[in-house]
Amino acid sequence: MEYEEPLFFTVMQYADAADRDVVDMVSGNPDWGAPEAISEGLHDYADTGGEQFQYPPSAGLRDLRERIATRRGVETERVIVTNGGGMANTLGMARALERFDGSEVLMADPVYPYYPGKTEMLGGVQRFVPVDDEGRLNPADVRAAASDETACIVVNTPNNPTGAVYREDAMREFVAIAEEHDAMLVSDEVYDHFDFSGAFTSALSFDSANVAVTNSFSKTYAITGFRVGYAVLPERDAPAARTRNMLTNVATSRPAQAAVLHALETTDTSYHEANRERLRERVETFTAALDRAGAEYTTPEGAFYVLARFPDYPGTMANAKRLIDEVGVAGMPGEAFGEARSDWLRFALVSPRVETAAERLASFF
Amino acid sequence: MEYEEPLFFTVMQYADAADRDVVDMVSGNPDWGAPEAISEGLHDYADTGGEQFQYPPSAGLRDLRERIATRRGVETERVIVTNGGGMANTLGMARALERFDGSEVLMADPVYPYYPGKTEMLGGVQRFVPVDDEGRLNPADVRAAASDETACIVVNTPNNPTGAVYREDAMREFVAIAEEHDAMLVSDEVYDHFDFSGAFTSALSFDSANVAVTNSFSKTYAITGFRVGYAVLPERDAPAARTRNMLTNVATSRPAQAAVLHALETTDTSYHEANRERLRERVETFTAALDRAGAEYTTPEGAFYVLARFPDYPGTMANAKRLIDEVGVAGMPGEAFGEARSDWLRFALVSPRVETAAERLASFF
Repeated sequence: MEYEEPLFFTVMQYADAADRDVVDMVSGNPDWGAPEAISEGLHDYADTGGEQFQYPPSAGLRDLRERIATRRGVETERVIVTNGGGMANTLGMARALERFDGSEVLMADPVYPYYPGKTEMLGGVQRFVPVDDEGRLNPADVRAAASDETACIVVNTPNNPTGAVYREDAMREFVAIAEEHDAMLVSDEVYDHFDFSGAFTSALSFDSANVAVTNSFSKTYAITGFRVGYAVLPERDAPAARTRNMLTNVATSRPAQAAVLHALETTDTSYHEANRERLRERVETFTAALDRAGAEYTTPEGAFYVLARFPDYPGTMANAKRLIDEVGVAGMPGEAFGEARSDWLRFALVSPRVETAAERLASFF
Repeated sequence: MEYEEPLFFTVMQYADAADRDVVDMVSGNPDWGAPEAISEGLHDYADTGGEQFQYPPSAGLRDLRERIATRRGVETERVIVTNGGGMANTLGMARALERFDGSEVLMADPVYPYYPGKTEMLGGVQRFVPVDDEGRLNPADVRAAASDETACIVVNTPNNPTGAVYREDAMREFVAIAEEHDAMLVSDEVYDHFDFSGAFTSALSFDSANVAVTNSFSKTYAITGFRVGYAVLPERDAPAARTRNMLTNVATSRPAQAAVLHALETTDTSYHEANRERLRERVETFTAALDRAGAEYTTPEGAFYVLARFPDYPGTMANAKRLIDEVGVAGMPGEAFGEARSDWLRFALVSPRVETAAERLASFF
């Protein structure tokens, strides 16, 4: 499997070019709108100019880093504001490969395709651990796959694409496995505001020098285009990661940082609660239709996605395109995420037309 | 010489903490203000929201790429919008090391410190070519240093820190040397709007599959904090560079791209002419004071910087700090840029108080 070119854009372009109405369930772009504070923060920033338009500190605006550090209960020096969660993961994985002897990166199959792509870019070796029937990495399987060759274990909770949310005991095990094998656990927690289970546990809950946590405001505030994320690194790894961030990007875009800072200062929890409630309803609507269609699926505990398998309709790229053309629903082919769920299709619940899509699927299958 | 941590921030922090008035001539932050269109573009963007706040295409907003391509006379597919000139250089240098057999990166001494820092980060080998008395790389010296080991030749025109602007014949030679040795010429042209000589020649003037040009709107529009730059790669290298950009950063911040696009559409050449004229006057004021101080210096043909050597006052970090404390002028120590100009100090002419600084220096020395 080639992960060099994540296929999201390919499928989205195909859907855009289709000669019919298509419900887009491909992208991870929230449709519910950013909090008003994002626009306000941008307007305020646009009125400054001069020095305010110049280089921010390379690791991020001080107030933003401090606010993140307070929220996460870590030292400010461990926080690096990055160009989205993408760069945060790049920093965490690069640091793991740099610090530890091994060159293997362990990750789940099915996998968010950027992880294997980054592994290759950074000169690491991909190693996949298939998830269990509920879409979760079993710590015992991770332990069996780990070895002296392991430099990095990547987990994503809540998970894209399976919707799994790892419990405290599983997270503790992942941390322990990283420590036992002299490796870094990179825990990508960009969907932490979209936990329906109430059981989400950040890897930062465990005091370990082998844990890097990555996050982003892309999903949290429905601003995937702003590119503001962050990495929290172990104290000993933060300086090297700051250097890599500086040498790669110099700094993270300041208008976007200013908008995010304003949103952190003024947005209350009701914004996030409303988004979770909306998603819960969409999960119900969509899975009810999947039941009618005779599909197998995993009910997501978090994030935006439902993985589903239709009878005699494997989740190939060809079948994803056929679904666009014949049914008017665009989903991601399971094969884009690896082997373990290559029969499945992934539907993102980030469209106000989830009900339309559900009806179309129920009547087609 | 360690280039892992470019020293700009160190010196700026020292100047900020000084117990006296200090004229900042360290940073490369323009003080003349962005065109009004930048703020307008941000305000317009802040009023959109929804889909407009979501992922832009990974290689940049289509309209922005097309406008850049038209200006530079290249195919749109060769243009990648990046997180500033920093990421553009990362892409160009990474691609050179990936595509060609050698691992050496040839660059000038004195050097913009990010180039050797990036070389190390990317696993390349630094090789320096000292500039001549006028602060220019002599093509004959570059040819003598080039070999089968050369993967990349980095030039910066107009030059930071020497102020040199390479003439057409020199640029043609650099391109030819890259072709002869199966290497990439990475021509960093971020100061192209600050050419006082009228002789600036882009490496894109030569039709070659061995040329990558990098640029940025940071200096052009006085928005170093926005992080919008671009790389123009050879057709055969553009896909791999797009993949690296996607895997590293996913995309470039969209509010900043929107603001830059609006500025490109509406800002006329008088903005750039006024900036050049202001800088010309500052060069005159400052070099007149250097004459009175008995300093040796290179009159810049472009960019923002003057390299100067004072009698019995080598450009060490200790002496740069002493200048802050005793004279109230902050400049960069020459040793931050390598060996060849380690006796010198670099002064950035991006302060409205150039005259004050000039007087202070003239009376101290």
